[in-house]
Amino acid sequence: MTETSRRSGGGLVHIKNPHLEAMDEDVLYHLDLGTKTHNLPAMFGDVKFVCVGGSPNRMRAFAQFMHKELGLEGDGEDLVDICAGTDRYAMYRVGPVLSISHGMGIPSVSIMLHELIKLLHHAKCRDVTIIRIGTSGGLGVEAGSVVITDRAVDARFQPRFEQVVLGDVVVRGTDLDGALVEELLACSKAIPDFPTLVGHTMCTYDFYEGQGRLDGALCSFSNEKKLEYLKRAHDAGVRNIEMESTAFAALCGLCGLRAAVVCVTLLDRLEGDQIRASHDVLREFQQRPQRLVAAFIRSRLGLRGAAGNARPSRD
Amino acid sequence: MTETSRRSGGGLVHIKNPHLEAMDEDVLYHLDLGTKTHNLPAMFGDVKFVCVGGSPNRMRAFAQFMHKELGLEGDGEDLVDICAGTDRYAMYRVGPVLSISHGMGIPSVSIMLHELIKLLHHAKCRDVTIIRIGTSGGLGVEAGSVVITDRAVDARFQPRFEQVVLGDVVVRGTDLDGALVEELLACSKAIPDFPTLVGHTMCTYDFYEGQGRLDGALCSFSNEKKLEYLKRAHDAGVRNIEMESTAFAALCGLCGLRAAVVCVTLLDRLEGDQIRASHDVLREFQQRPQRLVAAFIRSRLGLRGAAGNARPSRD
Repeated sequence: MTETSRRSGGGLVHIKNPHLEAMDEDVLYHLDLGTKTHNLPAMFGDVKFVCVGGSPNRMRAFAQFMHKELGLEGDGEDLVDICAGTDRYAMYRVGPVLSISHGMGIPSVSIMLHELIKLLHHAKCRDVTIIRIGTSGGLGVEAGSVVITDRAVDARFQPRFEQVVLGDVVVRGTDLDGALVEELLACSKAIPDFPTLVGHTMCTYDFYEGQGRLDGALCSFSNEKKLEYLKRAHDAGVRNIEMESTAFAALCGLCGLRAAVVCVTLLDRLEGDQIRASHDVLREFQQRPQRLVAAFIRSRLGLRGAAGNARPSRD
Repeated sequence: MTETSRRSGGGLVHIKNPHLEAMDEDVLYHLDLGTKTHNLPAMFGDVKFVCVGGSPNRMRAFAQFMHKELGLEGDGEDLVDICAGTDRYAMYRVGPVLSISHGMGIPSVSIMLHELIKLLHHAKCRDVTIIRIGTSGGLGVEAGSVVITDRAVDARFQPRFEQVVLGDVVVRGTDLDGALVEELLACSKAIPDFPTLVGHTMCTYDFYEGQGRLDGALCSFSNEKKLEYLKRAHDAGVRNIEMESTAFAALCGLCGLRAAVVCVTLLDRLEGDQIRASHDVLREFQQRPQRLVAAFIRSRLGLRGAAGNARPSRD
């Protein structure tokens, strides 16, 4: 069985679940929010941009950075974690921007997305753009490069996401929004101090063996076999490797969200496995997708000039 | 290709990676630890018990609880997160016990385990027992029951874990330690205020569609099909459902760690999908695996009587 993504009408988030309407209450358990305990339309109805990333600290830093970039009053230091009642995810809101952590790997991002998509639906949000800003391994690109994903592929370089439903495998497409890729690439032109490129992103279920690393607790292959695999990936157009993009693209696509993935590369996997850059260098690297996406949001909101694109003060 | 687990000799943690010895330095990136920056034998050499669970707050609470249960000086409130330099995982040490969070899902627990197993190897730990203390959905058992896993199975009820290596699927066994199951069950007899049972644990890649829930952002099946699937799981011996056990069993088994999984059930999935118990009830539920495992550790250390088995003060 194959499902393909499609855009819903009217700009609304599209829930594909006939059972939800019959529910008296929807408890978004891992976000510690719910339809009876919270006024979701009042809290989130005018959200237009959702930015997600693995690390809670980084998503807090992004919210504070957006606070400055949007020219809002105050220093953003007192931002409140909307999901403070749980430590599964962290969520911050700044004007029309929601910043949420999703942990590491497909299962973790998938739980967050199911509940986030229901949240946007209950809140009656319209015309929402969602962007994953993450870290990744690079493939044949300089460390610190930012990759805008044109196609999320699996460990066999196929643009598909397999979801098990009642024990059977359902195959889903991983299309991302081509116009959004172009829009993000155009925004990158105004940020000259790091390279940005468009390429395929490979998504794996594992960081060590699954990404061909030689430095895990288990490794059954040679350096030659590893390089052969990574070069095949590079030949297939893969420029970076992470652990969430196929599920992210599939779920957002099916629910009518315009979605993009923007990741910085922390190393070039053709040169090694261990992330050895200094803390300061890594921190600056991790700010790059934030700066690009902030420029994109400012552009969308017509906020050119003014605050400019200062570097986030911390990660 | 099929790999099976086996116990290594001498009680040492068994690294199956010939490349590690040739490495000048091993940076355990997601734990913010390393062989050159930290004296791992001094920090961890005498660790005998490792307890892991999804939530960082819960694993901190468990460490504080163990502090009391081991009769250590002070109130344990000043425990330091050994991984404070990263927010990917949290780690606390109390006497011979290490308490670590692993996030949600197989990829997240897998990254933590690769780095933890290398840590135990570098630290030259011996005779380590590792126990996952988690939360889960129940199947035909009263909410609040604690399930000790005798067999971790996948979404088709098979005791196997599929790992993709260089794009190919490797199948691994998910054996757990039978003697440890019996030892934990024996400890449970002394804790009369909640039911404990032994059963199969199903591990999925997804919380919503993957576990047959009707309340996700996507759902393509009927209540009847869902119940048919869950009843088949129950008939196959499954008593609870979570998202880490097969990978945990496979990785620990391959590396010679005696491993167990002890999870509380937050609801009975044959009765519904949403977790609706009150915060206080859930908090007490989540303490149950901690109390059982504390009793087990105290028993192993010969600490009977004394502190007794008080309830942890908070989660």
